[in-house]
Amino acid sequence: MVKNFKLIIEYDGTRYHGWQRQPNGISIQQAIEKAIKIMTRQKISLIGSGRTDAGVHALGQTANFKCETRLSPDEIQRGLNSLLPDDIVIRQCRTVHPEFHSRYDAQSKRYRYWILNQHLPSAIGRQYCWWVRTPLDIPAMQEAADMIRGEHDFKAFEATGSPRAHTRRHVIQARWERRSEGRLTFDISADGFLRYMVRNIVGTMVAVGMNKLTPASFQEVFNAMDRARAGATAPAHGLFLMEVNYS
Amino acid sequence: MVKNFKLIIEYDGTRYHGWQRQPNGISIQQAIEKAIKIMTRQKISLIGSGRTDAGVHALGQTANFKCETRLSPDEIQRGLNSLLPDDIVIRQCRTVHPEFHSRYDAQSKRYRYWILNQHLPSAIGRQYCWWVRTPLDIPAMQEAADMIRGEHDFKAFEATGSPRAHTRRHVIQARWERRSEGRLTFDISADGFLRYMVRNIVGTMVAVGMNKLTPASFQEVFNAMDRARAGATAPAHGLFLMEVNYS
Repeated sequence: MVKNFKLIIEYDGTRYHGWQRQPNGISIQQAIEKAIKIMTRQKISLIGSGRTDAGVHALGQTANFKCETRLSPDEIQRGLNSLLPDDIVIRQCRTVHPEFHSRYDAQSKRYRYWILNQHLPSAIGRQYCWWVRTPLDIPAMQEAADMIRGEHDFKAFEATGSPRAHTRRHVIQARWERRSEGRLTFDISADGFLRYMVRNIVGTMVAVGMNKLTPASFQEVFNAMDRARAGATAPAHGLFLMEVNYS
Repeated sequence: MVKNFKLIIEYDGTRYHGWQRQPNGISIQQAIEKAIKIMTRQKISLIGSGRTDAGVHALGQTANFKCETRLSPDEIQRGLNSLLPDDIVIRQCRTVHPEFHSRYDAQSKRYRYWILNQHLPSAIGRQYCWWVRTPLDIPAMQEAADMIRGEHDFKAFEATGSPRAHTRRHVIQARWERRSEGRLTFDISADGFLRYMVRNIVGTMVAVGMNKLTPASFQEVFNAMDRARAGATAPAHGLFLMEVNYS
């Protein structure tokens, strides 16, 4: 019987060339497909909810694959976790409706970006945050964050050279929060994301936080839909795909 | 003028063969000595407060070195941080009394051990904790921890094959704490530590937490000073040297 398995996956993106299968360099998708092939002796295609770029991490990436097997979801999960390298962990595995498609059915996603905002860098956990030395003006950054909530055209924050026909997205949540000892997070959820969108938004908001850009000029850049006037792309290693929501 | 510089050092021990200079494999001490040599053009000897084993991390290792230089402590700190790999960070640098010796003058040290105690391992931060799947009985472990407080002979927890003449140490603090989402810490401070002492104590207390050993039999093993009856050595990568105290 063909079953449709849904996986929730945690990974440390440091060693990988992103989620998606690559001709050169190893991807998360490939690593998991390889492990599934060993377990099931079938060559399957693992459908992710979307790509994550090289170096981006995940706590709740979602993927599904179809496979004819007698193995239970529990057996699949345990088997994969014993075969996979320790920087990839299958947090959940269950069977879902045959029509479930992790990309097409995704209603929204949430990302979290971590910044270490202090004078000195950190050796411990440096792989999981962007070190920004200049003290950041959080209220100004939150002012900018409030501007992107709702449905807007996010062309200003799309990766250059990868234009999409439709660049309107609905941002549900966009919140900066100060955590312990100089650690900041930016949580953003939306019905979809353009390539580099979170990292470009973070880079531009950090320019606001450094007072290189006022919230008003952030609004202008955003309205003008001009990537060239937005800030730099924040590094990949501060970014985590937290969860993918389905109805 | 010869100055005596005291450094407080944070490092991620993952890539290193421990603190101490090694004929094969790179050590933290070597990496810092090399950077100091580049800055000062002098071959100095960096004295650490003590060794940390291969894979052990530090947030507050302390070391000192003497050097004839016009450079200020601030310049030394900035220079070293720009020369060192990003898994070593000099958190503080200041000049101290010429007689200050980071090993001989250390009054006490504090270590922290991190355990991830949940059904599934974690990909994110796996380098910084020991994953123990079996649910641990914290009150039983704390009962054992209370037994080692005060001055005792710690021969039972000394690395085999590295006997010291004096194995009595004074443990000031020994506390298990449950933190967020399955994370446990063990904080231990003492006037000195034997080789593998913290990792052997943690390994044996985890055996208590798994009910493989009762607190009473822990006491027996401890009193008998018999390493062979103590538990396994906990892995290095959960251990952090937190601070070294001087009078």
